[in-house]
Amino acid sequence: MTLEQIMVKMTFDRWNALMKQFNTVLESLSDEQLQQEISPGRNRGIYLLGHLTAVHDSMIPLLDLGEKLYPEMEETFLRQPDRAAAQMPSAETLRHAWQQVSAVLDGHFAQMQPSDWFLKHTAVSTEDFANEPYRNKLNIIVTRASHLAYHLGQFILIR
Amino acid sequence: MTLEQIMVKMTFDRWNALMKQFNTVLESLSDEQLQQEISPGRNRGIYLLGHLTAVHDSMIPLLDLGEKLYPEMEETFLRQPDRAAAQMPSAETLRHAWQQVSAVLDGHFAQMQPSDWFLKHTAVSTEDFANEPYRNKLNIIVTRASHLAYHLGQFILIR
Repeated sequence: MTLEQIMVKMTFDRWNALMKQFNTVLESLSDEQLQQEISPGRNRGIYLLGHLTAVHDSMIPLLDLGEKLYPEMEETFLRQPDRAAAQMPSAETLRHAWQQVSAVLDGHFAQMQPSDWFLKHTAVSTEDFANEPYRNKLNIIVTRASHLAYHLGQFILIR
Repeated sequence: MTLEQIMVKMTFDRWNALMKQFNTVLESLSDEQLQQEISPGRNRGIYLLGHLTAVHDSMIPLLDLGEKLYPEMEETFLRQPDRAAAQMPSAETLRHAWQQVSAVLDGHFAQMQPSDWFLKHTAVSTEDFANEPYRNKLNIIVTRASHLAYHLGQFILIR
């Protein structure tokens, strides 16, 4: 294995394991349970699901893979806290959106070569990337895996 | 930057950011608040602090940096769930242990070269490592950063 292959495998082993754990918990919860809070007065499961969907949807343009599937979710799940939105999508709608975003990302990831991951992502300029080569596409997976782990630790608190 | 340097920086930027966030929350909580649960019926803050201390202490032998500082914590915080131990160390004792383990790890990390991180950790044999070069020391940081993020997401729920 090349060093690039090693790093991509280390990063995706973590990402895929976290996605699998999250999906296992998600599938174990009913739509009613998703309305529950992770802890009294804190975010509801449905908000966390929407938040993760919106963050992962943002990875599509960040990784130069196309446009967001659900740009309208940004306002409700990235800019606003839970319970601020006048209308919250249904659990069914959010489950579907989560699956769609996950499928689109997986489809693109399967076609990428290890070296592709060390190219710049779209939020850094060519000039800055020359001096900061760690601001690459793989780092988007590293940081979003960390974000996913953080919220997975909360999501499993729902009963 | 070499590819090794890039990968070490990506990994440690995440690890250090998570450690900083955890320490900020820890310092904001009183010893009394650490006795609270993250959610009704779930782990107490003090257990999570001991659990993270024991897991990070285990990184010392895994990275071939020496012996654990607190081997006696394994029983209470790795093998048993919260409230199973007859005696729980005080919050003061656990804060001190957490700082000691963090300081020892940081001291070793500062002396390591990028290439050191791509050597095998102690839980994999030389034979297996030849075929599975991703089971290196850096992968210990990758997986423990994910573990830390998971529990950080819970730890911030304590008020």
